[in-house]
Amino acid sequence: MVYERKVNYYELDGMQIVHHSNYIRFLEEARIFYLEKIGLPYSYIEQQGVMIPVLGVNVQYKSPAKFEEIICVEVSIVECNGVRMKIAYRITKKDTGELVLTGETTHCFTDTTMRPVSLKKYRPEMYETFEKYVTKK
Amino acid sequence: MVYERKVNYYELDGMQIVHHSNYIRFLEEARIFYLEKIGLPYSYIEQQGVMIPVLGVNVQYKSPAKFEEIICVEVSIVECNGVRMKIAYRITKKDTGELVLTGETTHCFTDTTMRPVSLKKYRPEMYETFEKYVTKK
Amino acid sequence: MVYERKVNYYELDGMQIVHHSNYIRFLEEARIFYLEKIGLPYSYIEQQGVMIPVLGVNVQYKSPAKFEEIICVEVSIVECNGVRMKIAYRITKKDTGELVLTGETTHCFTDTTMRPVSLKKYRPEMYETFEKYVTKK
Amino acid sequence: MVYERKVNYYELDGMQIVHHSNYIRFLEEARIFYLEKIGLPYSYIEQQGVMIPVLGVNVQYKSPAKFEEIICVEVSIVECNGVRMKIAYRITKKDTGELVLTGETTHCFTDTTMRPVSLKKYRPEMYETFEKYVTKK
Repeated sequence: MVYERKVNYYELDGMQIVHHSNYIRFLEEARIFYLEKIGLPYSYIEQQGVMIPVLGVNVQYKSPAKFEEIICVEVSIVECNGVRMKIAYRITKKDTGELVLTGETTHCFTDTTMRPVSLKKYRPEMYETFEKYVTKK
Repeated sequence: MVYERKVNYYELDGMQIVHHSNYIRFLEEARIFYLEKIGLPYSYIEQQGVMIPVLGVNVQYKSPAKFEEIICVEVSIVECNGVRMKIAYRITKKDTGELVLTGETTHCFTDTTMRPVSLKKYRPEMYETFEKYVTKK
Repeated sequence: MVYERKVNYYELDGMQIVHHSNYIRFLEEARIFYLEKIGLPYSYIEQQGVMIPVLGVNVQYKSPAKFEEIICVEVSIVECNGVRMKIAYRITKKDTGELVLTGETTHCFTDTTMRPVSLKKYRPEMYETFEKYVTKK
Repeated sequence: MVYERKVNYYELDGMQIVHHSNYIRFLEEARIFYLEKIGLPYSYIEQQGVMIPVLGVNVQYKSPAKFEEIICVEVSIVECNGVRMKIAYRITKKDTGELVLTGETTHCFTDTTMRPVSLKKYRPEMYETFEKYVTKK
């Protein structure tokens, strides 16, 4: 599943390329888009009393994106055991296919009080959806 | 009262000057600093069940600030009748005194449910502090 | 002409509404979109050696936008004499039509060295395009 | 060497904690502060025709920072061979010492045209300074 978006002017830094912190935000946009596409929109997750905080981010910058370029963010769940989930990303430029970034985010699941839960027990149906979409890297 | 801070690299835009949206954030920093200095730290305001949302922003950009420059934000309350409050700002460069921005933000007061209140009736003591610091422009 | 976009999670603040500084960024997105639609894409403006810095921002916040809401930004040029230009905005929620923000940005025109120019003399064709789209408020 | 700064209101997200992308910006602030302290202020690096782009970011979020908390960012260069450099970070809360984040950024060195260089050959003196400050993890 691919999430597309244009680079905004205010996302550039003094080198006229996207500031490296902003890609972390693009990953969040893409992740939320992806979850909606697989039947888990944010509003549903919230209503189920589940939160999915970010535990870690690991990204490699390959080539900088520039103003008005359209980037494609490929998202895939590469691990999910109900306690931890790992999501992988690959950003390319729409025009040229040039690789911009590869990376992963790691997540856990919590209830609304921020206490970690095992999704398998806490919300088995939601767990099954995640599990169904796990793809080997 | 003057709030000082350095310009960060990630606050620049593609022209190597502070992106114009970031000054709005500097005003917020300076406003919170100012309120603390006059005896109204955010934690106290919150604990009193008061919120002070922004109703309007009006700024004139005079000269751009650049990376690592130290800017001085002068803050003053120019109007406060307990229902509305107007705060004025003047940003200059510490080194040269050059004028960077002049502007104003307009605010109202609400309770924690976001319902507007008259501070004079709702929290008379807090109102008196605000009133004491109103300075003619 | 209307520019649409969804509110991202990272654009919220601690009150779960869009932080007021981010609307200034939405106006920039909408302005660039608008200029492209009237035949003045950023790349063309840049290639003509023209820059259009922001001299002032004046916005009134009417009602806060929330996560995943789609906002519509209406853009119109309300004044342009080749030396100054005023652009007006109106943000509403797509679903309900509720008014989120009204505002204006003021601009001048400069050459690539940031020296102000009269567009009428400096780039008459570009001036004519701007002029053609001026709408009375 | 430790860099201290307060959390700003606009750095929070809808959960009233610092948005995870903002820590990447705090690391940049701390890195620039650190380089200045070891005798390599940004202006000097720039004047030497050197750029130090970020190749990768790897962070683990341990505990969220909140509004007005003061965070301490410990910075150390853990590897530098003149082609690659690895910098490690540890963020704690000033008040409680609680661990907020651990992480690393990876960098290369380029000339002003963004072409990678070996700092050892290109700017031997700058290389020596970096080398002097490498600390084993």
